[in-house]
Amino acid sequence: MTDIDFPTLADQIRRFVSGQGFMRLVGAEIDELAPGLCVMSVARRPELLQQDGLFHGGVTAFLVDNATTTAAATRRQLDQRVLTAEYKLNLMAPARGERLICRASLLKPGRMAVVEARVFSREGAEDKLTAVALATIAMLSGPVRQG
Amino acid sequence: MTDIDFPTLADQIRRFVSGQGFMRLVGAEIDELAPGLCVMSVARRPELLQQDGLFHGGVTAFLVDNATTTAAATRRQLDQRVLTAEYKLNLMAPARGERLICRASLLKPGRMAVVEARVFSREGAEDKLTAVALATIAMLSGPVRQG
Amino acid sequence: MTDIDFPTLADQIRRFVSGQGFMRLVGAEIDELAPGLCVMSVARRPELLQQDGLFHGGVTAFLVDNATTTAAATRRQLDQRVLTAEYKLNLMAPARGERLICRASLLKPGRMAVVEARVFSREGAEDKLTAVALATIAMLSGPVRQG
Amino acid sequence: MTDIDFPTLADQIRRFVSGQGFMRLVGAEIDELAPGLCVMSVARRPELLQQDGLFHGGVTAFLVDNATTTAAATRRQLDQRVLTAEYKLNLMAPARGERLICRASLLKPGRMAVVEARVFSREGAEDKLTAVALATIAMLSGPVRQG
Repeated sequence: MTDIDFPTLADQIRRFVSGQGFMRLVGAEIDELAPGLCVMSVARRPELLQQDGLFHGGVTAFLVDNATTTAAATRRQLDQRVLTAEYKLNLMAPARGERLICRASLLKPGRMAVVEARVFSREGAEDKLTAVALATIAMLSGPVRQG
Repeated sequence: MTDIDFPTLADQIRRFVSGQGFMRLVGAEIDELAPGLCVMSVARRPELLQQDGLFHGGVTAFLVDNATTTAAATRRQLDQRVLTAEYKLNLMAPARGERLICRASLLKPGRMAVVEARVFSREGAEDKLTAVALATIAMLSGPVRQG
Repeated sequence: MTDIDFPTLADQIRRFVSGQGFMRLVGAEIDELAPGLCVMSVARRPELLQQDGLFHGGVTAFLVDNATTTAAATRRQLDQRVLTAEYKLNLMAPARGERLICRASLLKPGRMAVVEARVFSREGAEDKLTAVALATIAMLSGPVRQG
Repeated sequence: MTDIDFPTLADQIRRFVSGQGFMRLVGAEIDELAPGLCVMSVARRPELLQQDGLFHGGVTAFLVDNATTTAAATRRQLDQRVLTAEYKLNLMAPARGERLICRASLLKPGRMAVVEARVFSREGAEDKLTAVALATIAMLSGPVRQG
C-alpha cells in the first residue's frame, strides 16, 4: 500500500535511478516496473566481463543491489526513505549470455521489506538461471537519524 | 598451504584480475596481497556514485566479490579452480569518503573456503566501517564438470 | 542425477535423519521426500516457543538447516558426502500457528548445490509464509580431508 | 546508547530469555552480557547431536539466532522492540567438543543493528572456531503495525 499514485512513484524512481553515475557507467536499464516488481538488465560488452569472458560477478551483484531496492521502492510511502540493509546472493552458473537480466519481486512489504531476485543469462532464445538472491530493505519513516 | 610459491601465485592473480574488463571499468586496484589476505580499493569519482553522492552499493558489492575471491585464491593449489559460490553483505553506513577500501581475510582455507570482508570509507584521516561481508569460495579440483 | 535408486536413497535418508538426537528432541518429521524436495514440519508445543508464544526463531532455523540439507541429499551420488556449507534466512512474520512447515527445493544440483526454502505457519486452513531461506550444500567426493 | 540503565536491562533480558521454552529445551545459558555483547553456550548431550555425534547444525543456528538478538537487545531503548530480521551462517568445521559457545558482538547499533557472531567448539583446553554468522536486528519504535 502506498499513498503516492503508482505512475508518479514510477516516474520518480526512474529519475532517481537514471541519476546514478554507476547505473550509467554499467549501462543498465529498467525494463519493467510494477508494484512490488523491478526487472533490470544490461547488454554484454567487454567492460562488464571477467578474464574468461563471462559477466563479472560484480555486475550480477550490482543488478541485484539496484533491482531489489527498486522493487521495494515501488511500495514506498510518501514519508519513507528506502535503504538497502543487506543481501545475499548465490552465483549458480556461468553467465555467458548476450544479456544479464535481474528480476526482483517483493516477498514482504513493510518497514523491513524482503525481496527475492533471480538473475538470468540470455543465451539465444533461452534465459538461463545464473544467480539467486535474497535482500532486506529498510523503509524508514520520520526524521533522519544515525542508524 | 599451496604447492605454488607465493610470488608466482601473486603475479598470476594480479594478471588475472587486471585482465577483467569490469575491474578496469570500475578502476579498482589491488593494494595488498598476502597469503589469505587481499585489500582492494577504488577512488571516488562521479561514475561510481548513486543519486545522493555516496558510493553506489554496487561498487561495494563489486569490491566484496572480487577481494573475497582473490583472498581465497592466494591459498590456491596448482590443480584448483577458484569459484565464488555466494556472499552476503550488510551495508551499515553511508560511504561518502574519497576512497572505498575492502579488506578480505580468509577465515578457513580448504575446498569450501570462508572469507570475511570489511569495507571502509576513507574520510580524511579516518577509515569508517561502511559494510561487512561473509563469502564462500569453492576451490574445485579435477576435471571441469557441470556443477 | 544419482547412481543410487531413489527408494533406497530415501530409506537411507530417513534412517540418518531419525538417528539425529536433536531431530527427536525437537520432534520434527519428514512429511515428503522426492528428488530435489524435502518437506519437514513440527507441531506447536510449549518447549518450541519464545517468550511471546510464537515458534522460536531457532526452530525455524533448525527446520531450514535440516530440510535444505536433506533436499540436496535426495540427489546424492554414491560416493558423495553431503555437508551444509551455509545458509541465510529471513524471518518475515510471527509464527503463531499450530504447525511450522519447511519446504526445501533444490535450485541447482552439483558439487555446490543451492537450495531454497520457505517456512509456513499453519493457522487454521491457511499456511502463512513466515520465513525464506537460501542454502549452499557441498556434495564432496573422494577421501575425507581437512576442508 | 540506551535510556534504561544496564543492570535493569540485563535483568529484563535474562528474564525474557529464560522464559523461552525452546531455550530450556535446548538447555543453553547466557554466560556473559555486556553492552553490545552476548555469550551463550550449551553443554554436549546426546539430544543435541546429529547422526555422527557432532553438535547438530540446528543447535548452532539456535545459538546464533538467540545470541545475536540478545547482543542487540543490550543496546535497546525503552520504546524499542527487538526483532531478528535475518542472519546468515557459515558452518566451517565439525563441532565435536564438550561445549558449543556463541559469542555475538554488535558491529553497528541503531534501528537496523548489525551483529557478528563466532561459534566455538570447546575441545579440551582449545576453543575451535566452528561457525561464523552475520545478523540484522530491527529495533522498532512506535506502535506495533504490520511489517
